[in-house]
Amino acid sequence: MFSGLSAFPITPVNAAGIDENAFLRLLKRLTRAKVDSLGVLGSTGSYAWFTREQRRRITELAVAHAEGIPVMVSIGAFSTDEVLRLAEDAQQAGASALLLPALAYQGLTQEEVYGLYHDVAHAVSRPICVYDNPRTTHTQFSDALYARIATLPNIASFKIPGVPEPLPAAQQRIAALREQLPAHIRLGISGDQFAATALQAGCDLWYSVCAGLFPYAAKALYEAVKGESSQSAAAQTQRLEPLWALFRKHNGSLRVMAAAAHLLGDTDAVCLPRPLRMLTDADTAEVQRVITELGLT
Amino acid sequence: MFSGLSAFPITPVNAAGIDENAFLRLLKRLTRAKVDSLGVLGSTGSYAWFTREQRRRITELAVAHAEGIPVMVSIGAFSTDEVLRLAEDAQQAGASALLLPALAYQGLTQEEVYGLYHDVAHAVSRPICVYDNPRTTHTQFSDALYARIATLPNIASFKIPGVPEPLPAAQQRIAALREQLPAHIRLGISGDQFAATALQAGCDLWYSVCAGLFPYAAKALYEAVKGESSQSAAAQTQRLEPLWALFRKHNGSLRVMAAAAHLLGDTDAVCLPRPLRMLTDADTAEVQRVITELGLT
Repeated sequence: MFSGLSAFPITPVNAAGIDENAFLRLLKRLTRAKVDSLGVLGSTGSYAWFTREQRRRITELAVAHAEGIPVMVSIGAFSTDEVLRLAEDAQQAGASALLLPALAYQGLTQEEVYGLYHDVAHAVSRPICVYDNPRTTHTQFSDALYARIATLPNIASFKIPGVPEPLPAAQQRIAALREQLPAHIRLGISGDQFAATALQAGCDLWYSVCAGLFPYAAKALYEAVKGESSQSAAAQTQRLEPLWALFRKHNGSLRVMAAAAHLLGDTDAVCLPRPLRMLTDADTAEVQRVITELGLT
Repeated sequence: MFSGLSAFPITPVNAAGIDENAFLRLLKRLTRAKVDSLGVLGSTGSYAWFTREQRRRITELAVAHAEGIPVMVSIGAFSTDEVLRLAEDAQQAGASALLLPALAYQGLTQEEVYGLYHDVAHAVSRPICVYDNPRTTHTQFSDALYARIATLPNIASFKIPGVPEPLPAAQQRIAALREQLPAHIRLGISGDQFAATALQAGCDLWYSVCAGLFPYAAKALYEAVKGESSQSAAAQTQRLEPLWALFRKHNGSLRVMAAAAHLLGDTDAVCLPRPLRMLTDADTAEVQRVITELGLT
């Protein structure tokens, strides 16, 4: 589960709720491309907007159509009690791993964040990936907190939100993290534009949003890194810069990926859960232009 | 509903879930003090940590024991669909008004925030209070957005997160807001330490956390302002400064009010939903010292 390229698809909706057929079309792209794992109901998979019942259904669908590829599922919620219920649901539905953010409403102390991971880690029977993304969860992890959480049972991976650039700074950062964490912990990079640098700097895997719709482009980048051609990896990242620029422009990747999924014909014109809105016509036209120029259509 | 002193109690839990007896003890303090309205399941009421079923049950309990005092209930959730379900529940349970935050996960555009209020305002049959609190919801309202939302049906009040000080700056701010909003909109101040200044500057009511446990102290402050003795109002605010200092120290009022509710004998020693934690023994002792010195016990 915790190596290679992990693809995070969106979860499309339509007027009736979850658009299951559209979701299966998106999954098909990923199983055909043989990504190494699926990250379902991540931030990009809109977990925060769905009910417990919807999340269970999406997990069941993903596992049933994953063609043997391991599925990781977010169990994030404000309340520890709800997280534990979601973990039980995910395990019963066949998830291979659990993605756990520390979602803050009032701001959590480091002790409260540790307590969340402690309580969940001792209750589950699947490996946990610690989801560190202050932009969405509003929780900051210190390195000391990483180290404490890493000693808990079932903690297998950290999904980190980026690395400093250029490469030597990233290498220093990853080395410093490794020093504080047990050897079995797998470090995964999130934030697609940092992926090449982070993988070259020693991250074990890539938790990728763009792979959730464009798995071949993501594989090309991943393989350029693993082929140990840093020139080629940098060129791949540079090539995709217009896509990263769209992510930055639209406050994250979600609205851009939803627009792209519709442009590729996989979803309805409105496929994001309210109150999220689809991009304007002008912005959608820009997404069309970028993915066409990048050969992603 | 939208005048005077609106008291926001905590919603205590115990090992079994909602601690209904403790909640009723807290309510009794407020009905005995004859506060003007109750704000149930606000941020301080931990709405974000409870399930839909728990929120319905708390609303029913509050309405049944409010002794005729109007009850406002938060219907906040990430998803508009869930907000609409919660609104329907709250209305059926007898809530007099609905408190609606724009809870952001990925960050909401101004258009998305407007869309949320639009969709809910057109679906409900009770007045809505717009909850503006960037610290918990991570949504920023512009004045232009206030003005647009205020034109929607059922929008009755804005709960604003503070005012600039000193008084002339606050007066200028409230006057500027009034100019942009229809005359029927009631402005309520949140953030207890700003209450005296904001009420003197022309706010219509006080949405008060400290009134949720110490209604007589809050009434004394409110009445000092309404008696138009700005000296006396300033003295009341200054008197309570050690309490405001605790709110600032502990990242908001919730953990302090939970500690105080236990110290007053109304709740179990652990009365906050996980992953929230009760204050340490040393911090709890400080809360005890402050409320004793202020005569709040």
